[in-house]
Amino acid sequence: MFIAMNRFKIIPGCENEFLEIWKNRETFLDEVPGFKEFHLLSGPTTDEFSLFASHSIWESRQAFEAWTKSDAFRKAHANAGTAKPVYLGKPEFEGFEVVL
Amino acid sequence: MFIAMNRFKIIPGCENEFLEIWKNRETFLDEVPGFKEFHLLSGPTTDEFSLFASHSIWESRQAFEAWTKSDAFRKAHANAGTAKPVYLGKPEFEGFEVVL
Repeated sequence: MFIAMNRFKIIPGCENEFLEIWKNRETFLDEVPGFKEFHLLSGPTTDEFSLFASHSIWESRQAFEAWTKSDAFRKAHANAGTAKPVYLGKPEFEGFEVVL
Repeated sequence: MFIAMNRFKIIPGCENEFLEIWKNRETFLDEVPGFKEFHLLSGPTTDEFSLFASHSIWESRQAFEAWTKSDAFRKAHANAGTAKPVYLGKPEFEGFEVVL
């Protein structure tokens, strides 16, 4: 099992706008082989940012990587970057293998 | 739903030793109200460390926080810190609410 997380630092005050982007987003994940589950997570906040993270569970790292090269991935990210800036810096990707 | 993650930076070469500690550890989590699932994750490596993370899923943040004040928590952490050093710095805790 593999967990793909993307960490987003959101400018304070822009949290609701960020959530609206994700609520209205079509991810096309349900059609992707090896995809199991997706959640958006709200993490700790600091004076500088509110941390959010996308959290998707996959059968394997291979299934995740195949998705990143697929048409479904391109469709899901077609509108990325067109919204008003809510991000502090770039998202930080971390992939995790389930070892225990 | 709430996800509690603790990030561990492990000294390169000490990964197997770290895994052995977790394999042999009795967490007593199954007896804890609101606990759903536990995994240990292996994340990205750098020249300086290998990132691991504990990843536990709870019905709510309240259930997690109640556990941190419980006898089960004290029992699970009774031997923490007695092993040969494998950690680079302290673990970094992050709690995440599932928002979507």
